[in-house]
Amino acid sequence: MPRRMLCLTEGHTEPHAGKTAANLVRYKREEVVGLLDSTQRGRTAGELLGTGGDVPIFGTLDEAPEANMLVLGIAPPGGKIPQAWRGVILDAITRRKMDVMAGLHDFLSDDPEFVAAAKVAGTKLIDIRKNNEKTIARRKGIRPDCLRVHTVGHDCSIGKMVVSVEIANGLKRRGRDAKFIATGQTGIMIEGDGLPLDCVVADFVSGAAEKMILEHQHHEILLVEGQGSLVHPSYSGVTLSLLHGCAPQALVLCYEIGRECVTGVESVKIPPLALHKQLFETMANLHQKCEVIGIGINSRRVSAAEAAAERARVKAEFGLPACDVLRDGPDELVDAVIQFHARGDWHGPL
Amino acid sequence: MPRRMLCLTEGHTEPHAGKTAANLVRYKREEVVGLLDSTQRGRTAGELLGTGGDVPIFGTLDEAPEANMLVLGIAPPGGKIPQAWRGVILDAITRRKMDVMAGLHDFLSDDPEFVAAAKVAGTKLIDIRKNNEKTIARRKGIRPDCLRVHTVGHDCSIGKMVVSVEIANGLKRRGRDAKFIATGQTGIMIEGDGLPLDCVVADFVSGAAEKMILEHQHHEILLVEGQGSLVHPSYSGVTLSLLHGCAPQALVLCYEIGRECVTGVESVKIPPLALHKQLFETMANLHQKCEVIGIGINSRRVSAAEAAAERARVKAEFGLPACDVLRDGPDELVDAVIQFHARGDWHGPL
Repeated sequence: MPRRMLCLTEGHTEPHAGKTAANLVRYKREEVVGLLDSTQRGRTAGELLGTGGDVPIFGTLDEAPEANMLVLGIAPPGGKIPQAWRGVILDAITRRKMDVMAGLHDFLSDDPEFVAAAKVAGTKLIDIRKNNEKTIARRKGIRPDCLRVHTVGHDCSIGKMVVSVEIANGLKRRGRDAKFIATGQTGIMIEGDGLPLDCVVADFVSGAAEKMILEHQHHEILLVEGQGSLVHPSYSGVTLSLLHGCAPQALVLCYEIGRECVTGVESVKIPPLALHKQLFETMANLHQKCEVIGIGINSRRVSAAEAAAERARVKAEFGLPACDVLRDGPDELVDAVIQFHARGDWHGPL
Repeated sequence: MPRRMLCLTEGHTEPHAGKTAANLVRYKREEVVGLLDSTQRGRTAGELLGTGGDVPIFGTLDEAPEANMLVLGIAPPGGKIPQAWRGVILDAITRRKMDVMAGLHDFLSDDPEFVAAAKVAGTKLIDIRKNNEKTIARRKGIRPDCLRVHTVGHDCSIGKMVVSVEIANGLKRRGRDAKFIATGQTGIMIEGDGLPLDCVVADFVSGAAEKMILEHQHHEILLVEGQGSLVHPSYSGVTLSLLHGCAPQALVLCYEIGRECVTGVESVKIPPLALHKQLFETMANLHQKCEVIGIGINSRRVSAAEAAAERARVKAEFGLPACDVLRDGPDELVDAVIQFHARGDWHGPL
């Protein structure tokens, strides 16, 4: 039976906290019946998430009788299931016989109450982040002629996944054999494969990234979704494990206009973008030649005029292609990847 | 009942693979009955591990009737229990009613056969690496007047734990209130507390490091055991998570003379020590003032004369105190910590 998803975003139907829901309506709209947020009943995804058009926001489960899967549509720091959501989750399982899908660190399938309810109802609990990865990165067998482009950024939740998906889709439209490599819960829900790197045991994160590369390197170009940032005191290790595990030859550096403090650790100021570029290039070049080939701008908080001015400024500062893939379209970054691929000097040994 | 440990090192009674055993006989000798390695029966720990003096090496379990705990004394990459060891582990549990302690990624307590045997025998399975850490680093409540000294290095298994323990013990001998913060399985076995950071879920590694800092910051000086290296393609993320999580003001940079390739990824050459110093200082200084204050040399593979020459060379190159804490004693690094503490200019805000 096809998925007909209802995204639970209760009290969090906005682009940042609700990024999982936002990206499901953006990329899997045909499978999304609506959102569930009793505080926003009657409004639409387009109004509140800036994407998803007229996808409706329901106030109760019963307003979406065709839904067969409840998706927890938020990705809070720490990945805990909000206590207030337990009632609706249990109701969806017990009364509506819905499957439930989540990408949190707290697993549905470790919760005795959810497990018991799903067993009685005969429904599935799908934990996107649950894994048992135990592969160590070895840097063996990596194809030198598969171009690995990795999106990195100055903070978490700034759109690295969106930039990766948009470039991959843009390359496919140009007839190139590109593949999006999902490394986080939302990307996995969209792509249907991938590994939730931030939930892998620390020793095996780079191994899990490498495993995905090895599995998909028959493609011409891989777009590897980045995580966190090298300056984020809580998640920098995930970022570095991924950078070293996926062994990219090219990076697309992403940032959000107006983001000043590290998400979740507001005492830490985000340094200038030029420092991020230097840090990522330094750490990647420890192992193979790698350079930033373009810049992904997230301009959702500013006007079109401000976004255009900032785009011109950042292009001048770095001498690199730069665009907001949602506002401007991804063509400039797609071109950058194609031109870099054609240069051919990235076929270095590992 | 006090622990009377028998360390299983079958076929691996040498300092590198058997580092867990070596450090148990070094620091917990009064609790170690002997080693178990049928290939080295009749020899001593001192001969094969360079520490532990006349601690005997037995060929069978029955030669050590007083042992009440079997310890898996190796720490292989990937942390798997060698298949060939299952027989002796089951025999120790079933016939000898011994507890079993391990620090591997494969948990004894997840193995149905070991669990069943231990249940019948009424003995304990102790998995040092097993944890359920889910704390995110927040950089809140960290005391500016607790000096956090972190040992870092150019590769894994080069003696960062030993340097940390020796400096902590040296400080205590001088009457200072120092505490060793264990971050790996052997350190935890020795200190009796700590967290196995490389086995924590990736998003929570820096949070686990920070949690230990917050718990022990009533001490004057913390010596935080390092893990891996920033250039290790498999484990660099663990290294960076720990560096950012423990927020050190001072680093002791450790290396082993003659180590040329990254352990486990021999295609990657280890860069010069000066680059490691620069990388660690750059990454630490993103968040607070931090500098390398001394160098820990592991000279176990070279002669006394070669070690002395290299010590003089590295001191001249970096203008920093440097010693092999085992060969030379830790005094020079203990002095370096005391002098840095006295400078007082490290009380910066976080």
